[in-house]
Amino acid sequence: MKSIVVGFIDTPEGHAALETAMSEARLREATLVVLHSMVGGTHEKDDEYLASAEAIEAVHDQLSSSGIEHSTHEYIRGNTPAKDLIDAVTVHDAGLIVIGIRKRSSTGKVLFGSNALDILHDAPVPVLCVKAL
Amino acid sequence: MKSIVVGFIDTPEGHAALETAMSEARLREATLVVLHSMVGGTHEKDDEYLASAEAIEAVHDQLSSSGIEHSTHEYIRGNTPAKDLIDAVTVHDAGLIVIGIRKRSSTGKVLFGSNALDILHDAPVPVLCVKAL
Repeated sequence: MKSIVVGFIDTPEGHAALETAMSEARLREATLVVLHSMVGGTHEKDDEYLASAEAIEAVHDQLSSSGIEHSTHEYIRGNTPAKDLIDAVTVHDAGLIVIGIRKRSSTGKVLFGSNALDILHDAPVPVLCVKAL
Repeated sequence: MKSIVVGFIDTPEGHAALETAMSEARLREATLVVLHSMVGGTHEKDDEYLASAEAIEAVHDQLSSSGIEHSTHEYIRGNTPAKDLIDAVTVHDAGLIVIGIRKRSSTGKVLFGSNALDILHDAPVPVLCVKAL
């Protein structure tokens, strides 16, 4: 496998996805492609862009010290995260997507994001779904 | 990882899940636990039970000739496949679940089964979702 695409957001499930993707990259000797996607324009606030840039910088530091071959990408170009992630599979010739998904809430309510469902439906490669501990 | 649980049904996505689970078992040197779950009672017809038994027998033959350490299980005890699969994670000390999911239909209609959603929500380990080619 040439590469693994992981969708990163700065949440417990985003970090869980990153940790699992790092393990998979080691196991498969694959390059890790970390992708953070925001829609852009007025969809997010200025402080969200700043927080995101800082989080991605921290991920870059974490990966650099891990020794895993990797690249980080921040997309703000009007696409949904699902579209950015699926496009990245083709661009980076990936064989696996890793995403974080939310746990069922304490009230039993289902918390599946439309992005996760879109990724599962449209991904041309297997999708590994990870929850935070 | 000690074992991988794969939910098997005799459909293109079920076979895709099995193929991927076999690759993962080789990669991780894990035991493969193949689980076929039917609700039982009047939920399925007699010919469905027969077809299922034949399909599981074929899977057993395929795995025996593969050299992968494995076990096959057919559960007909009133549980949903989601519950049987998640229970099997604990029983077999599994670190990964593999399931087959359906593709978006040609009309774009979403075809996510409630079982797949329940597994994703309630699984205590990562879930690898595979579509048929």
